[in-house]
Amino acid sequence: MLILEVDVKQRVSVNEFDRLAAYWVMTVVGNPRITVRLWDGNEFYFADGTPVAVMEFRSRSALLNLVLAQSVGFGEGYSNGRIEIHGDIIDFSNEVARAITTRRNQNYYASKLSSLLRAIRSNTLTRSKGNVHHHYDLGNDFYEMWLDERMVYTCAYYDDADASLADAQLAKLDHVCRKLELKPGQDVIEAGCGWGALATHMAEHYGVNVKAYNNSHEQVSYARKKAAARGLNDRVQFIEDDYRTISDQCDVFVSVGMLEHVGLKNFRGLGKLIDKCLKPTGRGLIHSIGRSHPRPPDPWISKRIFPGGHIPSLGEIAAVFEPYKFSILDVENLRLHYARTCAEWLQEFDKVSDEVGSKYSKEFVRAWRLYLAGSSAAFEFGTLQLYQIVFAPHGNNDVPWNRKFLYSPESSGD
Amino acid sequence: MLILEVDVKQRVSVNEFDRLAAYWVMTVVGNPRITVRLWDGNEFYFADGTPVAVMEFRSRSALLNLVLAQSVGFGEGYSNGRIEIHGDIIDFSNEVARAITTRRNQNYYASKLSSLLRAIRSNTLTRSKGNVHHHYDLGNDFYEMWLDERMVYTCAYYDDADASLADAQLAKLDHVCRKLELKPGQDVIEAGCGWGALATHMAEHYGVNVKAYNNSHEQVSYARKKAAARGLNDRVQFIEDDYRTISDQCDVFVSVGMLEHVGLKNFRGLGKLIDKCLKPTGRGLIHSIGRSHPRPPDPWISKRIFPGGHIPSLGEIAAVFEPYKFSILDVENLRLHYARTCAEWLQEFDKVSDEVGSKYSKEFVRAWRLYLAGSSAAFEFGTLQLYQIVFAPHGNNDVPWNRKFLYSPESSGD
Repeated sequence: MLILEVDVKQRVSVNEFDRLAAYWVMTVVGNPRITVRLWDGNEFYFADGTPVAVMEFRSRSALLNLVLAQSVGFGEGYSNGRIEIHGDIIDFSNEVARAITTRRNQNYYASKLSSLLRAIRSNTLTRSKGNVHHHYDLGNDFYEMWLDERMVYTCAYYDDADASLADAQLAKLDHVCRKLELKPGQDVIEAGCGWGALATHMAEHYGVNVKAYNNSHEQVSYARKKAAARGLNDRVQFIEDDYRTISDQCDVFVSVGMLEHVGLKNFRGLGKLIDKCLKPTGRGLIHSIGRSHPRPPDPWISKRIFPGGHIPSLGEIAAVFEPYKFSILDVENLRLHYARTCAEWLQEFDKVSDEVGSKYSKEFVRAWRLYLAGSSAAFEFGTLQLYQIVFAPHGNNDVPWNRKFLYSPESSGD
Repeated sequence: MLILEVDVKQRVSVNEFDRLAAYWVMTVVGNPRITVRLWDGNEFYFADGTPVAVMEFRSRSALLNLVLAQSVGFGEGYSNGRIEIHGDIIDFSNEVARAITTRRNQNYYASKLSSLLRAIRSNTLTRSKGNVHHHYDLGNDFYEMWLDERMVYTCAYYDDADASLADAQLAKLDHVCRKLELKPGQDVIEAGCGWGALATHMAEHYGVNVKAYNNSHEQVSYARKKAAARGLNDRVQFIEDDYRTISDQCDVFVSVGMLEHVGLKNFRGLGKLIDKCLKPTGRGLIHSIGRSHPRPPDPWISKRIFPGGHIPSLGEIAAVFEPYKFSILDVENLRLHYARTCAEWLQEFDKVSDEVGSKYSKEFVRAWRLYLAGSSAAFEFGTLQLYQIVFAPHGNNDVPWNRKFLYSPESSGD
């Protein structure tokens, strides 16, 4: 490994220990092509090739927090501005994700020390109080500023390379409906319906009757208004309640972007609920962020963005289905679509960041930029996956023999 | 439940205990519409509706063996002719599979007793010596009698409802090749190549270089002769060795119908091997029989047909991939195709059963008929699944954005 000191202005405040800390920080993430700039202007570069961006630590404590608390240290440091990224934040995130994904034979002592620091960090975590708003306290106005017109806050499906975000969200709704082979008059249960885009779309274009569950009062109110405006009140019912209260029988069970928030210990219960609700002739679809390896959630994302969630591996998702009588029919991984979705969300978000900053805080804007860029990078480099899983009760043989129908123009709704 | 005694010829030998045993046997499998006929002509029917077939016990010991050793008792009893099925064996197998799949709220005491009997049975099993030839001792001649011309002994793909077995096996080879996006000149490793149909097809029609592994001397000799006859010796190499000796780098890793024989404890090792061999830009496919629930193999199938195998659930298959850096890209379930494949194999087998009987034994023919019919039924009712899993190393973004290309006519080889 080439160690390049791009600019060695030796000022008083940076010592050998600081340099070692910077080296350590970059080694742990696989030596990305990122220049480290310290508070006195000293720069270090530990990789080969041309740097992609500069990461500036504006204080020693920001650097030490990164050593001690890694993900949280970086997330908090970037949010509060003690860490600055010079360059495009998506390029920066992609480069870090690339380095993490491709690092091989991680240093034994580095990984031991990393575990030890994780243990120390878990205390640090409980001590620090959150001052950034959590995801679901934010209200509809915030999301309306930068989501597409249908308010879809899950992975889009870029059916066409030139598709806009709004087109791709519409294509996703249709892709899900096709996979479910919706037929007019069928009863559909949707668990976790967000602002109601899918529920409304299914009722309007596929003629089904939908009961959609969501425990967010603001989202349900919004969804009801939208459905009423489209004259769909007789076919879509939005129920402000937890998915665990679902008890009706249905032909189709669908859940898009909820499993990530359910928590691993509730997977079996979710499966039991689906097993109870779904008619023997029914089918279902779960759309969820996934991981390649079972792993605890990223601590900073847990702390600031999605408290209580768990992003499962496919093996962990099996716990939803395998205790019950289901055939998993089809699993599609759309991770590249989610990388693009997050990058487009960030573009939209950046257009309104001043407005967001004045309504919330600069720290909030920076936390969200980091979250969207980091998510995009994680999908781009396969540390996150997006699974759409189609399933049916065991004995249901009224299932398609192949998947051609998904790609033929006739199979859309209306 | 209606208990019908269709024909109550009370002869001396059948007592109340025998009737209870017959009742027990049918209850455990969910009361299929099967008439039980005992050795004295007495018939019992414990279901509603019209009987699909008659199961005749020609001796008390055959009935008691079924009570004690369930799957093994039935398999052995049918093979040695002490149990006879009157009616079509596929209809019989489907009806039993249907009843097992749809039984609800299995009787608590029945399931407790069933577990107890399983414990007793495991002793019975070790005591009885096998006299039916195992799968891989059988030689090429046996399989040539009833497999398709390419000698493909895995699930076919009925691209077209009218396809013959041979057409469907060819379509399966192309379906696998398309999923792998083979490009001329690529290096392919195939683990467990049977008689070489896929390896030869890939080399001949997709212009790739194949190293195909199989530790059966007879199969490898056969495959080499076929490839030589097609002038493919420069592009296909058949290696008579265990898959665990694979060490070359490759662009594509494929394994069709091997995972079932690998054994659960070796899944992680298989994943490690693929992780080592597959280039960062590569992709792979595993095609395997699967289950909805993790479960030990059927004891009779283990004893007589596939010793040492384990049919994994999707959650168990995750153990191949999740310790390493893979994205699972696509999972397709082809269970209905395998139900049809097995049923068509049985038809072909029946055409040559006299010849098979004189070469081996009547018992052997009956064991194979039961195995093929039972497998067809298990796929038909979803107790068995057939998964094709496409995967790629984590960071490989040269993967398709959607699956349209699988269904467009241009994507075939040549």
